Amino acid sequence: MTLTGKMLIGQHAISGDREAIQAINPATNTRLEPSYAGGSGAHVEQACALAWAAFDAYRDTSQADRATFLETIAANIEALGDALIDRAVAETGLARPRIQSERGRTCGQLRTFARTVRAGEWLDVRVDAAQPERQPLPRADLRQRHVPLGPVAVFGASNFPLAFSVAGGDSASALAAGCPVIVKAHGAHPGTSELVGRAVAKAVNDCGLPEGVFSLLYGSGREVGIALVTDARIKAVGFTGSRSGGVALTQAAQARPEPIPVYAEMSSINPVYLFPAALQARAEGLAQGFVASLTQGAGQFCTHPGLVVAVAGSALERFIATASQLLPGCAAQTMLTPGIFSAYQAGVAALAEHAQVVATGAAATGPNQGQAHLFVTQANAFVANEHLQAEVFGAASLVVVCANDDEVRQVCEHLEGQLTATLHLDENDLVHAKALLPVLERKAGRLLVNGWPTGVEVCDAMVHGGPFPATSDSRSTSVGTAAILRFLRPVCYQAFPDSLLPGALQHANPLRLRRLVNGHREA
Amino acid sequence: MTLTGKMLIGQHAISGDREAIQAINPATNTRLEPSYAGGSGAHVEQACALAWAAFDAYRDTSQADRATFLETIAANIEALGDALIDRAVAETGLARPRIQSERGRTCGQLRTFARTVRAGEWLDVRVDAAQPERQPLPRADLRQRHVPLGPVAVFGASNFPLAFSVAGGDSASALAAGCPVIVKAHGAHPGTSELVGRAVAKAVNDCGLPEGVFSLLYGSGREVGIALVTDARIKAVGFTGSRSGGVALTQAAQARPEPIPVYAEMSSINPVYLFPAALQARAEGLAQGFVASLTQGAGQFCTHPGLVVAVAGSALERFIATASQLLPGCAAQTMLTPGIFSAYQAGVAALAEHAQVVATGAAATGPNQGQAHLFVTQANAFVANEHLQAEVFGAASLVVVCANDDEVRQVCEHLEGQLTATLHLDENDLVHAKALLPVLERKAGRLLVNGWPTGVEVCDAMVHGGPFPATSDSRSTSVGTAAILRFLRPVCYQAFPDSLLPGALQHANPLRLRRLVNGHREA
Repeated sequence: MTLTGKMLIGQHAISGDREAIQAINPATNTRLEPSYAGGSGAHVEQACALAWAAFDAYRDTSQADRATFLETIAANIEALGDALIDRAVAETGLARPRIQSERGRTCGQLRTFARTVRAGEWLDVRVDAAQPERQPLPRADLRQRHVPLGPVAVFGASNFPLAFSVAGGDSASALAAGCPVIVKAHGAHPGTSELVGRAVAKAVNDCGLPEGVFSLLYGSGREVGIALVTDARIKAVGFTGSRSGGVALTQAAQARPEPIPVYAEMSSINPVYLFPAALQARAEGLAQGFVASLTQGAGQFCTHPGLVVAVAGSALERFIATASQLLPGCAAQTMLTPGIFSAYQAGVAALAEHAQVVATGAAATGPNQGQAHLFVTQANAFVANEHLQAEVFGAASLVVVCANDDEVRQVCEHLEGQLTATLHLDENDLVHAKALLPVLERKAGRLLVNGWPTGVEVCDAMVHGGPFPATSDSRSTSVGTAAILRFLRPVCYQAFPDSLLPGALQHANPLRLRRLVNGHREA
Repeated sequence: MTLTGKMLIGQHAISGDREAIQAINPATNTRLEPSYAGGSGAHVEQACALAWAAFDAYRDTSQADRATFLETIAANIEALGDALIDRAVAETGLARPRIQSERGRTCGQLRTFARTVRAGEWLDVRVDAAQPERQPLPRADLRQRHVPLGPVAVFGASNFPLAFSVAGGDSASALAAGCPVIVKAHGAHPGTSELVGRAVAKAVNDCGLPEGVFSLLYGSGREVGIALVTDARIKAVGFTGSRSGGVALTQAAQARPEPIPVYAEMSSINPVYLFPAALQARAEGLAQGFVASLTQGAGQFCTHPGLVVAVAGSALERFIATASQLLPGCAAQTMLTPGIFSAYQAGVAALAEHAQVVATGAAATGPNQGQAHLFVTQANAFVANEHLQAEVFGAASLVVVCANDDEVRQVCEHLEGQLTATLHLDENDLVHAKALLPVLERKAGRLLVNGWPTGVEVCDAMVHGGPFPATSDSRSTSVGTAAILRFLRPVCYQAFPDSLLPGALQHANPLRLRRLVNGHREA
């Protein structure tokens, strides 16, 4: 299982010819072998040519074959064994159990998409039968199914080296939809990317698929990333990362002769509302839950609770006091990369200019360790100062103290789009929560009661998305089975002879799909 | 039923304060009273403020109430009687029966969306029940439904003064989704727009809805149009018109601090493939059908057959000869506006520079009459010259003569995105058609066999959309019930008490929706 430092262009391991990077173990600030030379435009060209050549054959695979492919990827990742876990731990500074559970999530996600592909609801088959006798004009037979958009470029995330990287949610859902995938590996975990990339490429070969179904490139966002997004053969983009990165890719995609959709999951501060009765009844318990959620994984989650909103009073004071007592007991934690650590330091410093620091976690004892920070500000200050709404990626959070319900609502209306909004409430808070709910539904993709936003379930009902800047496209989710819908478009077939129709649309319904026939859903 | 020349901002009839336009009867080149003064940014501001104020209440209406509203709009349009027909005929030069049937289509479309709203599949309800015992972590109860995006700006089309204008497909589907609508009337038919706008505004009042659910503005695209698309309260845009107009709106929407989706239906030349056996068997009949489709409504359809592709030979010569014999018998027809007429003249002149004119329709006998044109070119010339692929809006079409099947495929691969692609084929052509089908599926939103692309059915299976530049968003359709999906986004509710859940998601399923529960679709 020796790492080679090579890209995977189809089934070929190829060395880049641009500046090389090495992963850094953030816990020790030491470089990890081997070097990963960046790819160039020529490598993007090769990968896109292969992906395009593979597209028609890959999208024509049966639901069963495509599902088997996804399951084979999962099995091949598991077969990497401890080598994968060791490398991912070294590259990310994340704890071993976390990486192990993330591997489980990643493979479970691939198998979930395999089930989704087999079930076939994503085809959204609709049939309107011919009405030859209709007046004044007859109606032709009309049938609709969904087809994949084309090759998809996926940009791995720093904070989920497995679940949102080479074979993560974006890749799994695009492959499930029938789209070849070209991944640009995140520079923070190239070795993990190579290992997983080889597992995927092996699955392509194991399943006898055309090699262009999957490629893995290294290199700079400016060269390889932009070349990928602007290649005419790429038809959609999946990205998880910073707001500036997501916006840059979206603008590049929109400036193409043929603009394409970009699904960028970017920035969210995930407001948590503490309603009066709940706060009164259990301020201390809420503070405990909050600190645990805030500091989990060094706060390096898109859904970490970066904002707490509540009405002033003794209960809120108890919440802040308890959190402030707990925070110093929270060890500083190694962050994913030196870059993320310094961005966190800068974000905390910027917040400190505009809000009051009420507590900090234990000081760092090693390199790149983020120290938790809790800030407090008033509602009027929050609404007046856009700096207070910027995402700080890490274990920092801001409590916004409101004078009354009106200010809570103003703070809520003032927010940009969010991935999540959390409500802590008791029976007596329901009337307040109900009043705020319409605002929250406009602001966030997921609303949750009496829990914490960290932890995103992979299931049918999940929405990991939300209005800009949480994502670039609020109509979609990047986690859960509905993520497959991002990479599909409808095609209508009018008056086709049965023998020319794809199986999904044939009269005898050989794929046994639950179709919408003449306005009625089949059982 | 006197026309007032006033805009409708909510329930208020308000005169614009910018340059006024008058409709022109294109058949006579005479101006029609009254004048319609354009609105300003201040009017956009008022309409957007009302729409935003109405949004939360309107989206909270029951499926039944929203359906009744759509049906009331239809009834109110019908109640306008001949006044609407007279005005629309005068403003467009379209034949009376065409306008009458378009009214039927428009009202039918509103009633179809009423049925769609009642059926509720658009809510896409998904339920994943709690698993409190799950290891290593319990799963919370997760429920998803779709909610409307927010107020929508609709830009009426010139060529469907009823079916794709004030109460046309975009407005109907946005209102069905729960979005308030602000229409910018097309300058070609302001009187028709006023009449229909009053019918919609009356329905808002009849149904006791907040007035901001609907507004109608006049004015320039540059001032009113851009102000609408860039207003922060507008959350999506529907547009049918030119490629340049659609691209300009899309760019304005993308440049906003919060980018929003634009559904622009723009440009398509709708290739028609004549396969060898069908062409051999019935070249003359195909030519008759082609000429009828080409000249229908002066060719002013997004789906008019602007390109014919076939392999050279005596059968294709018979097709061209028959079409050339028929065309001179086709009267020149009044086009929608003087501007559209002169654009058609310019388009025909541009085509004539690059391809051979083989036949023309009868010469004009009145103002603004478009004369049909048939051009011929060779495949290699077509592929080498992008001018030959530009849409000419009107009764002009280009036959591309191919040396063999390979050239047919090259022409097909060379095409930009299309709304439709048509295949004329017999049993013996199936193998050729099957080989071309994957290319066509990548290129077009609707594929049809042995028919003509003009005529777009409003039903569940319809796709009126396609890859750029046919539309700005190939993932959607602007005709048919799936058009409602353009204006919705998913929201997930985690661990909500039943009393806080919207009806669609409550445990007892009071709305009796067919939900996806724990991976299984309810019957």
